[in-house]
Parts: sequence; C-alpha cells; structure tokens
Amino acid sequence: MQRGIACPAQKTGDIAILKLLSSHCLFEGLQQRYRHYSRTLGCEMNFSIYLPPTAFNPSRAPRMDGPGKFPAIYWLSGLTCTDENFTLKAGAQRTAAELGIVLVIPDTSPRGEGVAASPDAAYDLGLGAGFYVNATQAPWSRNYQMYDYIVDELPALIEQNFAVGDVRAISGHSMGGHGALVIALRNPRRYSSVSAFSPIANPIASSWGRKAFTHYLGNDEKCWQNYDATLLIESSRPSEHLPLLVDQGDADEFLPGQLKIERLIAACEAANYGARITMRQGYDHSYFFISTFIENHLRFHHNAFRNF
Amino acid sequence: MQRGIACPAQKTGDIAILKLLSSHCLFEGLQQRYRHYSRTLGCEMNFSIYLPPTAFNPSRAPRMDGPGKFPAIYWLSGLTCTDENFTLKAGAQRTAAELGIVLVIPDTSPRGEGVAASPDAAYDLGLGAGFYVNATQAPWSRNYQMYDYIVDELPALIEQNFAVGDVRAISGHSMGGHGALVIALRNPRRYSSVSAFSPIANPIASSWGRKAFTHYLGNDEKCWQNYDATLLIESSRPSEHLPLLVDQGDADEFLPGQLKIERLIAACEAANYGARITMRQGYDHSYFFISTFIENHLRFHHNAFRNF
Repeated sequence: MQRGIACPAQKTGDIAILKLLSSHCLFEGLQQRYRHYSRTLGCEMNFSIYLPPTAFNPSRAPRMDGPGKFPAIYWLSGLTCTDENFTLKAGAQRTAAELGIVLVIPDTSPRGEGVAASPDAAYDLGLGAGFYVNATQAPWSRNYQMYDYIVDELPALIEQNFAVGDVRAISGHSMGGHGALVIALRNPRRYSSVSAFSPIANPIASSWGRKAFTHYLGNDEKCWQNYDATLLIESSRPSEHLPLLVDQGDADEFLPGQLKIERLIAACEAANYGARITMRQGYDHSYFFISTFIENHLRFHHNAFRNF
Repeated sequence: MQRGIACPAQKTGDIAILKLLSSHCLFEGLQQRYRHYSRTLGCEMNFSIYLPPTAFNPSRAPRMDGPGKFPAIYWLSGLTCTDENFTLKAGAQRTAAELGIVLVIPDTSPRGEGVAASPDAAYDLGLGAGFYVNATQAPWSRNYQMYDYIVDELPALIEQNFAVGDVRAISGHSMGGHGALVIALRNPRRYSSVSAFSPIANPIASSWGRKAFTHYLGNDEKCWQNYDATLLIESSRPSEHLPLLVDQGDADEFLPGQLKIERLIAACEAANYGARITMRQGYDHSYFFISTFIENHLRFHHNAFRNF
C-alpha cells in the first residue's frame, strides 16, 4: 500500500458569520460550501468556494496582493442554476489548483421564504433568474439586488474571511455571462479581466432579457442600458478596456434567438475593443461546452492577474 | 472573431438497435447517451459513451485492434447512480480525448415497469443497486443479471456498433469498484487491467454486501464467494494476475464499516498480487475524490493497453 500526499486538514467549524455546509478535498485543495446572511439581498445565501492547495502551504503561495493573498475568479451561473452546477460539472478546480486561483461561485438569485418568485413558476424570472441587476420594481426590489451583492458584498465577505486579495476576475455562462460582462464593463478597475461562455450579449434584444428587465427595472428602456453588454461596449472609453474573452458554440440552441453574439462582435469592432471572441464549431449550450474550454479561461485570467 | 477547430458532425439518427437520446460535443469528441433493449436483463437500458476526437479522424486513430479500433474503459458506478453521475461529474473525458480511449458507462441496475424494486425503497437494494451479480432468487432473478450484461451483452453491443475493439479495461466506484474488481478477476483474459475507487472490497463482510447477496443469491454463503474481490484475490493464480490499481480516501465515511480495503490489501500481500493500492489522505467518498485521481487511472489503463 502506498500513502498519497496529504490534503489540507478539514476545517470543521464556521468562519466568522459564515456557516460551513460542506467541505471536500479536491485536487489537494478544498471545495467548500457556505451559507451567510446577505444584508444586500435581505435573505440567507449559499456560495461555493474552491481553495487551491497553495492556500494551505504559505511557502508555495503566490504574492498577488501582499503575502499569502490569492487572486479570485468569480463565476456567475445561468438560468435555473445554483452554485452547485459549476462546482460539480465544469472541472475548473483542476486548473485552479495548478495556477493557485480561488474560485468563488455564488447563487443566481435571492432565495427563501418571503422572496418573490415568478407567479407561474417560470424558469426565466424570479428564483434562479436574478439576471445580476438591482431591481427597482415591486415586488422584486426588496430582495433582487444581485448586482450589488456580486460587485460589493460578496467580495468584501470573501476578502475578509479567506486568504484572498483584491485581484479579481469575473466569468460566467449564459445569464451569468451577461452578468460577468456587465459587471466588469461597469467596474473595469475592480477586475483584471472578464470572460464569458455563451453570454446573453444584448439582452435588450432578446426575449429573456426583455422579460426580466421589464419586471425588474420597469418599462422605461433607458433604465435597461446599463445592463446590456453590447451597449456598454459601444459607449466604452479605450482607457477602461480590459482583457475580454468569449467562447460561443455554433450549435447552441439559444444562439439565434437569445444570445446575439453577432451584436457583441459588431460593438467590439466599432469601439475597437480588443476582445477575443471564438465560435466553437459543434458545441452547444451545455456544461460539456464549458468543461471543454474552462481551462483556457482560467489561463487567460491567470495571465491578466500577472499584468494587473 | 476567431473560429475554433471543428468538432465532429453530430449524428442525429439511431444506430442499429440503439436509440440515440442525446449527443454533445466534448473535448472535440462526442458524449452520447443511448437506449437499447437488453435481452440479458429483460428491459430497456440506458448507457453513456464518450467517443474521443480521433474516432472521427481515422488518420490519427491508434491501431489497438485492427485499423481504426479503439480501446474502451467500462466504468461501473455506485449505489443510487445512473450512467449520468460519472458522465457529468468525473471529468474523465479530457484525458480520454487526449489518449484516444472510449468510455462506456452503463446504468447500475435494470429499470422500468415490471422490474423488482426494494419494497421499502431502500437505496441499497433493487433499483440503482444491482451489485453486478446474476441473481438466482425470486423476485430478483428475472431481471437482475448485471454480471452477464456487463461481461457479455454490453461489450458485444459496443463492439458491433462503434469503432471499439476487444481491448478493454474496467473501473468503478464503491459498489462499482466491487463490480469492476470481481468482473476482471473472474475474466482476466477479457480485460487488460482493472482499477477501482473506494471499492466494497470484501462484501461478504459488509452490511451492504450481506444484504444484497442474501436477497439476490440466497442464504448459502458459498454462492457469494465468486462475487467477493478479496476471496477471488486469495484464490487467484499468478498466471492470471492483471494490472490492478485502487485509490481509497482515508476520510471516507464508509471505509471502516463497508469498504474493508485492509482485507483487500492483506489478500494481495498473501497472494503476492502486484496491486497498486494508495490511501489518499483527507479524501472522502464523493465524486470530488474521483475527479482528482481519474486521470491517473486512465493513464494506468492506457499503459496496460499498450502492453496487452
């Protein structure tokens, strides 16, 4: 019998205001899930986090932001997802372990008793469909403040409780690709880089986006513009351009009606935005697509961390 | 915009007696799911298969068994699983794509109307809990013939319908680790190698194994011996030893009561069986453990294929 190298000791207790729900050794690091009360959202939220092996071995830790601080990639998931889909299916932790990157994976909407839900249980509104906006319309405005949660509250919580510095990237899939692009484009100094898989790239021109924005933001389409990646690229200043990577499958069933990648490509060309956007032949909208190319995305962000 | 390299064209039709349920590009190969009628089990069965990119590009294909034939690894899953758990969570396809290996992932029991189920819906008997035996006792004996299905019917079906030769390995997790070990030890000339994660290594000494064997095989414990990896190792002939790899997490909640790896280790030592068995510190029974070490297992089988 052989004995493998040791995985870090399991933390069994809670950290500060975080309740530890689960902890698993994974690629010599730890995959953990926590619950906390979000002031921004007014409800309890779960998130998952992957801590790479170097987080437990300071002598091997990189120094991105002071001693022993790690860079983090925030992953925003798509419609109907929780933090568990990416955690279980994307296979990203292997490369995160290799590169010494923390992965932070939030839920896609507020949840729980008293949180507004779609009256007809639609998958594209309400629970699991927060669209990463700050809702202004009743009944959504009480809890649906996902933009502020992702931009401010969650990073502060992570950076206070884990060995994570303020070197951040953001990425996501579909609705989460929309969220990642919008959040990075509006906060270019908070993120070293942004990437997306199959993003809802021009939501004001898609039925998913128009439905969500009407409910969350109201009928005045001027209020939608700050949540549309294509419009944000069109009005971007060159001094605020950041490294931007997008992969899109050409067999994606949502590409023509909902995703509108061609609008994003045109906006990048018009604004001379140096995005790297690749059409992947034969790939669809599933996590099989994400798992194929997630390593590329992590390496892209890792390069940006070093130049940030 | 860039254009990625092409993934193989999707097959939309059915193959022979196989009904195609789904097909996704994955690491430049195809992840597919099929349904077929199993004569051995007397019911319809699903299986998943991963076909690596070289399967669609004959000039790059290895020649393990005549032109364009690929070696296959059969993966047997654990209690409560279907073919989807490994397909979605283990991340094995990345290495299978690199090495040119087909992955064949069957279900864990017969299913469907008329198939006997546990009267109290227990997770460890009946549906999802076939234990890879040929049941001899009513009501199980009518459909629960998983041993013959895995050893004979499924490989014949795969080898008739896909570019797969008769170079095979077998692997699995927990109940499926038990199945893989038993099947390879009893058929050492049909498999180039065998591996397991967290196997039920001595089922006659575990409550999972004793319950299943009592129901499926009856009260005569002599009839259980052919389904116990530790006993099969003890009585193995050196000329029939095959490459054998096992990984076991030392934080596995089922290790002391159900898995009994120490019995397998002792049997290998007594029989001078050259198994490579590694205790992995901190790892538990989950797919996070499997995904961490599955690449090692695929490379182990790949080496065995070349020496077979």
